[in-house]
Amino acid sequence: MYSHDTQLRTRYSETDQMGYVYYGNYPAYYECGRVEAMRALGLSYAKLEESGVMMPVLESYSKYHKPGKYDEQLTIRTHIPQLPTARMRFEYEIFNEGQELIHSGWTMLTFVNMETGRPMRAPAVMREALAPYFDEK
Amino acid sequence: MYSHDTQLRTRYSETDQMGYVYYGNYPAYYECGRVEAMRALGLSYAKLEESGVMMPVLESYSKYHKPGKYDEQLTIRTHIPQLPTARMRFEYEIFNEGQELIHSGWTMLTFVNMETGRPMRAPAVMREALAPYFDEK
Amino acid sequence: MYSHDTQLRTRYSETDQMGYVYYGNYPAYYECGRVEAMRALGLSYAKLEESGVMMPVLESYSKYHKPGKYDEQLTIRTHIPQLPTARMRFEYEIFNEGQELIHSGWTMLTFVNMETGRPMRAPAVMREALAPYFDEK
Amino acid sequence: MYSHDTQLRTRYSETDQMGYVYYGNYPAYYECGRVEAMRALGLSYAKLEESGVMMPVLESYSKYHKPGKYDEQLTIRTHIPQLPTARMRFEYEIFNEGQELIHSGWTMLTFVNMETGRPMRAPAVMREALAPYFDEK
Repeated sequence: MYSHDTQLRTRYSETDQMGYVYYGNYPAYYECGRVEAMRALGLSYAKLEESGVMMPVLESYSKYHKPGKYDEQLTIRTHIPQLPTARMRFEYEIFNEGQELIHSGWTMLTFVNMETGRPMRAPAVMREALAPYFDEK
Repeated sequence: MYSHDTQLRTRYSETDQMGYVYYGNYPAYYECGRVEAMRALGLSYAKLEESGVMMPVLESYSKYHKPGKYDEQLTIRTHIPQLPTARMRFEYEIFNEGQELIHSGWTMLTFVNMETGRPMRAPAVMREALAPYFDEK
Repeated sequence: MYSHDTQLRTRYSETDQMGYVYYGNYPAYYECGRVEAMRALGLSYAKLEESGVMMPVLESYSKYHKPGKYDEQLTIRTHIPQLPTARMRFEYEIFNEGQELIHSGWTMLTFVNMETGRPMRAPAVMREALAPYFDEK
Repeated sequence: MYSHDTQLRTRYSETDQMGYVYYGNYPAYYECGRVEAMRALGLSYAKLEESGVMMPVLESYSKYHKPGKYDEQLTIRTHIPQLPTARMRFEYEIFNEGQELIHSGWTMLTFVNMETGRPMRAPAVMREALAPYFDEK
């Protein structure tokens, strides 16, 4: 498994009148987590799209353990539990400044060839970057 | 089961550079659906909060069947499959203008007494408004 | 001058922890206003883009008279004060349910040929649709 | 004058189908800029609100010089041009990774006593933190 931590500070625009982070903002936090997890492997999602591959989301699941609060520095822990094939799963744990788990979730993404609009397998560069974390004997 | 349809037009602000509705905007669409589903029963979520009850989301699941596009008039079909007790489940189906199912999902919400911060059962007014749709015999 | 009213209901996702509509959401409301103002003239912004013309925003100004509140049905009054040339100005007044002016603003947009990336004049179809409102003697 | 630079990376959720940062996202970037500018002075906006003072926005102006792009590390340069009195002005310049000015703007904020809902003067702690930058001889 590959794991990566990234941090972001919650914004006023992301709160709602309950005084919490609005529940619909977590998928954008996931995106920050997975983009930075890929960047740490040398993979730029922006460059992936420039090369003609996009990764739309097929499914998403969110569990709200505790509310997120304004101006907290959250830690997004992103896990890639398997080598991607036609699909790629990301799992997320979000911790507040007190290191409490406030949120968990996962997303299933796929790979689409932007020229043809058709699904494709994970690009070789991505599989190669991740392979060392999944070396089986 | 109780079901209600509401419509909304996708906004430019909700698209992303794939040219689709950004995946993180669907939870806000769910919220529009469930608020209008409640309003059609005579229940105002705004008034519920004024009366001291809020409904935070505990879990959310989203399935992306087809992309949402800019400026489409979407139909959000909201189902309430059970009478609420300590929790309340909403299910959503989202159709595009061609009546294709482009998205489905569900959310599980709970009831919180805003004064004490503690969980509570669904308010009587909500159970009474929904009861006729769940008359078992 | 051409004017058009459109209505939208504020969403929970648009509130912030002050309990008001977040100040950064008004430009998206402007967009709803101007798109519906154009639609009422038979002009679809979505089709304009499909025809290869986009309208990026050059400048925007916002004045916050009173807070917007959750679940209010707002009226967005959009004015087009002049026939568009290389630029197009939209002015907005936003009223709450009590018909109080809560917000005003304007945006200056331009026309870009999406193939060349270069500025262009307002498309003829737009000038023709608007001309009757600016008939000078 | 007091000035402060903060950086943020544009998110996919902030792009629109033009492939640019949606024009309505800049006010949230301003907020990041001014909150960090205040934090660098030892002033926490979150704590200010906890102490019963909020700072709603009265006016906002935005000028779009060049498009913001996905995944760019933007620099938000925030200027406080005057000591705050009943109002407080912030000015912003936003630079892309190539140090090009892509955006400029300003906001005028005010101070509200959250208990009474009435306007008030800038809190002493804020005036004191800023005074050294405005020492006139």
